[in-house]
Amino acid sequence: MNKSITLAKRPEGAPSLADFSFETEAMPSPVKGEVLLETAYVSVDPYMRGRMRDEESYIPPFQVGHPIEGAVVAKVTESKHADFKPGDFVMGRLGWKQYQLSTGEGLLNVDSDVAPLSAYLGVMGMTGLTAFCGLSEIGKPQEGEALVVSGAAGAVGSVVGQIGKIKGCRVVGIAGSDEKVEMLKSDFGFDAGINYKTTDDIGAEIAEACPDGVDVYFDNVAGEVSDGVHRNMNRFGRIVNCGAIAHYNDTSEPTGPRVELLLIQKSLSMQGFIVSNYENKFPAAIQQLSQWLHEGKLEFSETVVEGFENIPQAFLDLFTGKNIGKMVVKV
Amino acid sequence: MNKSITLAKRPEGAPSLADFSFETEAMPSPVKGEVLLETAYVSVDPYMRGRMRDEESYIPPFQVGHPIEGAVVAKVTESKHADFKPGDFVMGRLGWKQYQLSTGEGLLNVDSDVAPLSAYLGVMGMTGLTAFCGLSEIGKPQEGEALVVSGAAGAVGSVVGQIGKIKGCRVVGIAGSDEKVEMLKSDFGFDAGINYKTTDDIGAEIAEACPDGVDVYFDNVAGEVSDGVHRNMNRFGRIVNCGAIAHYNDTSEPTGPRVELLLIQKSLSMQGFIVSNYENKFPAAIQQLSQWLHEGKLEFSETVVEGFENIPQAFLDLFTGKNIGKMVVKV
Repeated sequence: MNKSITLAKRPEGAPSLADFSFETEAMPSPVKGEVLLETAYVSVDPYMRGRMRDEESYIPPFQVGHPIEGAVVAKVTESKHADFKPGDFVMGRLGWKQYQLSTGEGLLNVDSDVAPLSAYLGVMGMTGLTAFCGLSEIGKPQEGEALVVSGAAGAVGSVVGQIGKIKGCRVVGIAGSDEKVEMLKSDFGFDAGINYKTTDDIGAEIAEACPDGVDVYFDNVAGEVSDGVHRNMNRFGRIVNCGAIAHYNDTSEPTGPRVELLLIQKSLSMQGFIVSNYENKFPAAIQQLSQWLHEGKLEFSETVVEGFENIPQAFLDLFTGKNIGKMVVKV
Repeated sequence: MNKSITLAKRPEGAPSLADFSFETEAMPSPVKGEVLLETAYVSVDPYMRGRMRDEESYIPPFQVGHPIEGAVVAKVTESKHADFKPGDFVMGRLGWKQYQLSTGEGLLNVDSDVAPLSAYLGVMGMTGLTAFCGLSEIGKPQEGEALVVSGAAGAVGSVVGQIGKIKGCRVVGIAGSDEKVEMLKSDFGFDAGINYKTTDDIGAEIAEACPDGVDVYFDNVAGEVSDGVHRNMNRFGRIVNCGAIAHYNDTSEPTGPRVELLLIQKSLSMQGFIVSNYENKFPAAIQQLSQWLHEGKLEFSETVVEGFENIPQAFLDLFTGKNIGKMVVKV
């Protein structure tokens, strides 16, 4: 039998294991033009919380009773498709299933000689592309500028900070534990780190870490952490709104300081970023990321959880910050 | 004797007449390289409220005990400067004084044959440039898009809406009285108008006026009016943060819905706009505005108050929306 994980119900507030359901079904069999895929690695990502809501966004919501889907690396075990042969590895937007069929649409071949398979869910996949495109296209960091990254020890944040260093910026990361802050500096080369859980004045800490102010803010979290960064933005600063994990589990519209006066006073910009808007930049971005990886300029960090049955818990752990770097599940 | 108006004290909350002081001084006399100017028209503008605060912004604060300064059109009455002769009219950033000296720095000659003198404080001055540059450089309206303007009956808003129509947009204005809303449609060619004071759901009114959503929002007010517009923004929408008059008199940091989730979901941008950042665009902008004015494509609306002694009250009246179009004082 084949196993899958479906959305049992839409969570209110923080999601829990009860929002997921394990289902079994007959093992599927490919017809002409199809491949049978065996899941190797599953990506769990904060943005998926948004798809659990029944609301309009840049990507359709998950449907109750249907498998969750996201980025997956899988092995071709049987092929009736000319472009794929058994033993190939592919990446695609696929279901949380042990085995599944595909027509090949949207599948990309991945090569474990170029990078470890799990890296195609991280630095060589959507995570790396998000970091690269968001920073390049909206943040536009210049040499000598100060870059602040929130969620800095996470999958995207840890790559953003490293690219910032490659670009010649002073890079300051905000994370949720002293261990993570230490790792930002020792493993990822950040100039400074701030543990937002042990300070009651993020704004003052940012001012100390960025004495000349902040030019680019790559924001993965929003909320009060960002309020503190906003106050330190320099004129003509750019805020990349990539994520807002502080609010993904909110049950009512979050409120906070209004930003308009600050945007006007400092000629700031805030721009919402979705990686899929930049598909035309992907080939060049992947080439650059791959080169940096091989030159040793980019450290690739991941938290690997083992076992198909642990996918939901791994997803839940994103919201308590249990991961360092990219969170993936090895099936 | 010469009269001037100084900042008597910094207002807390809404400014009042007591924040201004009328002073007298000896009539100044130009030395070599100077001109004596007689004020003809004084511009009063919402942004000046910001300069009454003792805080860092894009322009230094007014100093207590010193004359207020802003855009003024004046007549050269005496000249010891090679570039100016008696009878010339000039525009510049000058003090609220009946007479004052200038070295000529920053003064621009204006021609009453090209446009009425007061227009150089409005459609042919900072107001027109603000509307033109903010809309062109940040709003980037495309033919067939929907443009919403708040503070639509004001100096900047009424020009923004007309430029939007010239660009082929559906234009909806938000203003504070039925009279103003009627004028938006009859005088300025807006497609629809909303009186924010007589609705309790701006969002629903915007949805009705813009059934295909909002692509560009030119925001002069911020606050709850903007909350209603934000909810109706289309993907890739652009918000031009030009003004925030709803908050200029706030005594504590204003709060409201956090915008990050919306920015991400819809790939929106918000950008603070200051006209002085775009000085290199001014010559082309003035040429275009002048052409539209002469072609009759741009209606020029102003509220003219008479008398030097009424300058402070005219400024205060901006915050209760007494003006339609540009508010100027004829001295």
